[in-house]
Amino acid sequence: MTDRAYDILLMGRSSIDLYANEIGAPFHEIKNFAAYVGGCPTNISVGTRRLGLRSVLLTAVGEDPVGDFVLYFLEQEGVVHKFIPRKKDKRTSAVILGIEPPDKFPLVFYRDNCADIELNIEDVLAAPIADSHMLLISGTGLSREPSRSATIFAAELARAAGTKVVLDLDFRPDQWPDARAFGVTIRSVLSLVDVVLGTADEVKAGALLEDVSVTVEHSQVSGARVSGDLLKAVKAILGAGPEALALKRGGEGTTVYLASGDMIDAATFPVEVFNVLGAGDAFASGFLYGYRKGWDWYRSARMGNACGAIVVTRHGCANFMPYEQEALTFIEERGGF
Amino acid sequence: MTDRAYDILLMGRSSIDLYANEIGAPFHEIKNFAAYVGGCPTNISVGTRRLGLRSVLLTAVGEDPVGDFVLYFLEQEGVVHKFIPRKKDKRTSAVILGIEPPDKFPLVFYRDNCADIELNIEDVLAAPIADSHMLLISGTGLSREPSRSATIFAAELARAAGTKVVLDLDFRPDQWPDARAFGVTIRSVLSLVDVVLGTADEVKAGALLEDVSVTVEHSQVSGARVSGDLLKAVKAILGAGPEALALKRGGEGTTVYLASGDMIDAATFPVEVFNVLGAGDAFASGFLYGYRKGWDWYRSARMGNACGAIVVTRHGCANFMPYEQEALTFIEERGGF
Amino acid sequence: MTDRAYDILLMGRSSIDLYANEIGAPFHEIKNFAAYVGGCPTNISVGTRRLGLRSVLLTAVGEDPVGDFVLYFLEQEGVVHKFIPRKKDKRTSAVILGIEPPDKFPLVFYRDNCADIELNIEDVLAAPIADSHMLLISGTGLSREPSRSATIFAAELARAAGTKVVLDLDFRPDQWPDARAFGVTIRSVLSLVDVVLGTADEVKAGALLEDVSVTVEHSQVSGARVSGDLLKAVKAILGAGPEALALKRGGEGTTVYLASGDMIDAATFPVEVFNVLGAGDAFASGFLYGYRKGWDWYRSARMGNACGAIVVTRHGCANFMPYEQEALTFIEERGGF
Amino acid sequence: MTDRAYDILLMGRSSIDLYANEIGAPFHEIKNFAAYVGGCPTNISVGTRRLGLRSVLLTAVGEDPVGDFVLYFLEQEGVVHKFIPRKKDKRTSAVILGIEPPDKFPLVFYRDNCADIELNIEDVLAAPIADSHMLLISGTGLSREPSRSATIFAAELARAAGTKVVLDLDFRPDQWPDARAFGVTIRSVLSLVDVVLGTADEVKAGALLEDVSVTVEHSQVSGARVSGDLLKAVKAILGAGPEALALKRGGEGTTVYLASGDMIDAATFPVEVFNVLGAGDAFASGFLYGYRKGWDWYRSARMGNACGAIVVTRHGCANFMPYEQEALTFIEERGGF
Repeated sequence: MTDRAYDILLMGRSSIDLYANEIGAPFHEIKNFAAYVGGCPTNISVGTRRLGLRSVLLTAVGEDPVGDFVLYFLEQEGVVHKFIPRKKDKRTSAVILGIEPPDKFPLVFYRDNCADIELNIEDVLAAPIADSHMLLISGTGLSREPSRSATIFAAELARAAGTKVVLDLDFRPDQWPDARAFGVTIRSVLSLVDVVLGTADEVKAGALLEDVSVTVEHSQVSGARVSGDLLKAVKAILGAGPEALALKRGGEGTTVYLASGDMIDAATFPVEVFNVLGAGDAFASGFLYGYRKGWDWYRSARMGNACGAIVVTRHGCANFMPYEQEALTFIEERGGF
Repeated sequence: MTDRAYDILLMGRSSIDLYANEIGAPFHEIKNFAAYVGGCPTNISVGTRRLGLRSVLLTAVGEDPVGDFVLYFLEQEGVVHKFIPRKKDKRTSAVILGIEPPDKFPLVFYRDNCADIELNIEDVLAAPIADSHMLLISGTGLSREPSRSATIFAAELARAAGTKVVLDLDFRPDQWPDARAFGVTIRSVLSLVDVVLGTADEVKAGALLEDVSVTVEHSQVSGARVSGDLLKAVKAILGAGPEALALKRGGEGTTVYLASGDMIDAATFPVEVFNVLGAGDAFASGFLYGYRKGWDWYRSARMGNACGAIVVTRHGCANFMPYEQEALTFIEERGGF
Repeated sequence: MTDRAYDILLMGRSSIDLYANEIGAPFHEIKNFAAYVGGCPTNISVGTRRLGLRSVLLTAVGEDPVGDFVLYFLEQEGVVHKFIPRKKDKRTSAVILGIEPPDKFPLVFYRDNCADIELNIEDVLAAPIADSHMLLISGTGLSREPSRSATIFAAELARAAGTKVVLDLDFRPDQWPDARAFGVTIRSVLSLVDVVLGTADEVKAGALLEDVSVTVEHSQVSGARVSGDLLKAVKAILGAGPEALALKRGGEGTTVYLASGDMIDAATFPVEVFNVLGAGDAFASGFLYGYRKGWDWYRSARMGNACGAIVVTRHGCANFMPYEQEALTFIEERGGF
Repeated sequence: MTDRAYDILLMGRSSIDLYANEIGAPFHEIKNFAAYVGGCPTNISVGTRRLGLRSVLLTAVGEDPVGDFVLYFLEQEGVVHKFIPRKKDKRTSAVILGIEPPDKFPLVFYRDNCADIELNIEDVLAAPIADSHMLLISGTGLSREPSRSATIFAAELARAAGTKVVLDLDFRPDQWPDARAFGVTIRSVLSLVDVVLGTADEVKAGALLEDVSVTVEHSQVSGARVSGDLLKAVKAILGAGPEALALKRGGEGTTVYLASGDMIDAATFPVEVFNVLGAGDAFASGFLYGYRKGWDWYRSARMGNACGAIVVTRHGCANFMPYEQEALTFIEERGGF
């Protein structure tokens, strides 16, 4: 497989992310926003690229200056963006985010008529799935048509080509007509997936058929609270096909559950939390870096934890992803893997 | 399982079906239409009911006189309709059909803003899935949200309750934004399905990842032509979960393919074809009648063939489904099973 | 003006109209429907054509067999249909109608995603407005975009070209997001109109700013009941521009109100009512025939009444419009104008 | 009329406006945005309030933090906001703007599924139109339903109550399905309007029936270029009802055209241009301040010019509107009215 042109192809949403510059201010008092590029698969495309992987992004942008903004950033970062279509009469996504540590990070999605959800089967057929070692898809990419069918189709092609499929659950309740439709859709795709990434809430929302209630606090805050039995959920997911599920537990580290029944805990690196937005995508970048290198689950998870820890001390996400040497040094300085 | 209240719960579309009274006339010269009730799962609900099964239908209609028309017919037929919601500001579906034997049956779907595609997870939770022996879902019910998620959710609940899941592929190309999305969606649900019903074209459209081209002749004619290798398609479907696939071959009878690799041919009963519309649903009714009774695949398929043969000699569909004794006599008169 | 190629250009909706063959049956018991062509401007195009006017219709149909049905009928009738666009991915309208004399005529509109509401400014620019003596527009054509702007634009072009503008109020409450938006829109176009046609309910719905309540009986029955002061409404309309308002009073004849303050009553011709649907369009045909011929208001209204009276004794509408000699004989036999 | 509670009620759009902090940078290189409140009627509500008028705003926001942001600002400014509905499942508008003097001000509207276009007739009935001396409506408020009908209805109520109606043409080509529909709609409302505000391009787009072509440079730049004869356009508008049209000519001052045929030129105050966005709304604020005070057209226009001149030297719009004394001093220091 060493002759494949790309290490990872990432498919899904992108946006201009506008982060409040006034940390701790209530949203209505914010006076300035810093402009970054964001969106789960987009963040991970930059994160993996900075760690040295050959990353290619399959998102879509509109024919507007915000689309230029996104593409210009990818160009600067060295992420391959030539497969990204510009969708006529559609709008590049935007997200406006407040930062009120420790636990309120209100965000407002501008995703109506958005370009990236228009990714279709033609766009997938034009992308180099068989020429990539991994394909990353995300939950939000499954929320609406035509992106949903296109995303599942991409996973089918990946399977057929021996490309590993990674699913970032990326659960955004307000992007679904019914929060329970998230689980229905996730479960319908699991048989095509090798590795699942998610938080405890996302895992429960994705796996549990019954007794699930989804609560969203602080108007569209990034994390929904989901009730239910986590271990039952983990088991349900692994029973449906994937070899591993990396459970992102924030300050408590990462647990990798395997289909074999094994479970690997990887502690986090203690840092002062400034902004949790994007930490999960930083983790994914480090974790998939290790996965691609053939590292074991523990080492991969520790690499992910390091990348996550670095990003929570910073303002934004994609623009603040650590580089390979930076992450390795960070780990070394804290006692190594 | 004898204590379940219903033999079969059928979920999906319904409509007023307007069939040309002038047989053979080009569509633009038609002067009168007969009004029947139609839609794949609705037809089968009537067909199985006439054969003696306790059938319950989960479709949706609008708050309009056409909705009254559909419900009144179900009431007369004895199909349980109390779980059918009326969707505010939505329209009961309509289909207008021309009849130009032997091979042109142009039809025009009025399914924009239609009520039955609004079936949602709440509607499914209110329906007696665990109290039915079988659940029938259909391809068109998977074509759009919220019906798609609701339909998959129903199949999940059925699985959990030990209710057999039957999938009628019911491929209507114009109901899908991209004909290839049909296959993507069908494949994503197969792991929940016990029995699949379909024509050769539908099986190919549902199963084949590559080298499939879909051609629709005669503006929205009921059957699309799909290229590709049929046996490869059958194998792909049975490899994904179902125990059996009943291939409806029209005048050439039925072949039941089993996951075990076995294959059972059941010849048809020769009749003069008047109108093929609805023959497949009549087959499904007879076939599922046998399946519910615990008959073997051959006998079930012959019963289906008999029902189909009876209906092709008649004008419409649901209104012309044979009764149990009628079908058994028909078979007996032609030499028996 | 005698060198203009057409007498009247009619703009707006068209449909296949399916009329119950069982007269008096409740809707849910109907077994057969006769298929005609319908829609206010379409009906009047046929009605005026049969009376001898050179009529051209600007509606739109889909790329479906129902569109063929509409165009084929227009061709047979000699209505000029070459300016009618076929709208891709849109559906030709359909209406299903029950007939329960004397006062219930339930109808169900299939106008979601319909072709005729897609008429746009380009279609108007391609139509021979300046080459017609009259332009007829209708209320339903103003209900949604892009047809609304296109219809007003057509009236503007007519004004600029010296083409008389006739507005048939054609109030269908369920075609408007808010019934009060009908009045707002009608009033915004009145300054471009020469002659208004409508029933008392339509006139009140169109004119009254306050104290109007709209009631729709018998689910989508053709006539809404509107409260309010009729004479105040007539005055408001005539104060906004038109020279005349022809008030269709059904069995009580017609009253033509003039901007000058004059008022002309024209008695009806007594007949036995079979089906009121389409009577208003028959009236419009006769009335505009007289208007085009330069007849006085009384004689024109009597001609309209005759055409209306003939059609209420028949089953449908466009297909049953009287021919010129037929209408004149009808009047003569009843004592003349 | 001195007993009316409000001087001016402004109806239409609102948004969070994100202005580039890097002046002159190409859009894709912008790193920070300042967050203000914007939208033509919203800007003028703040501008008139700062000049001392009792202003009430009728816009709509979503149930999101950006809606809080807008309402909080209005509260601080003393603009009456209690009639503003929050629209469920709709999004408060956002605009992202680059600043590249002297002539490029690219902006990206996030107005899909936006709350303010959902203003409806009920919202208008709840607003104090008869209790205000003036009603300001804007072109963008007429671009889509239900806001369009609601806006015209508001003008009708204002007319009936003796409230002066001011129309800011506010032409945003990308908010209309067809740029020509803007003119059709503007013309259909002119009979209800007392005073029109607009640029030469807006006046031509609104008035001219023929020979108009609309060109938008620099992807969504604020000003479209419109061809055609300006004086003919002015005459057409004044012939349709308004008593005056204030033509905003930017650096060349203002010309007020009257229905009487008179024309008043008011020179501008020379300043160095920093950012033209919002200058027109500042002009409107000053001009309407004079109009409300009963000043003559020249003095009102000069007051408007002063406010506009002050704002072009500043970064944003609503947040930078001058206060009464500030504007009067500015004029005095430059030689007075």
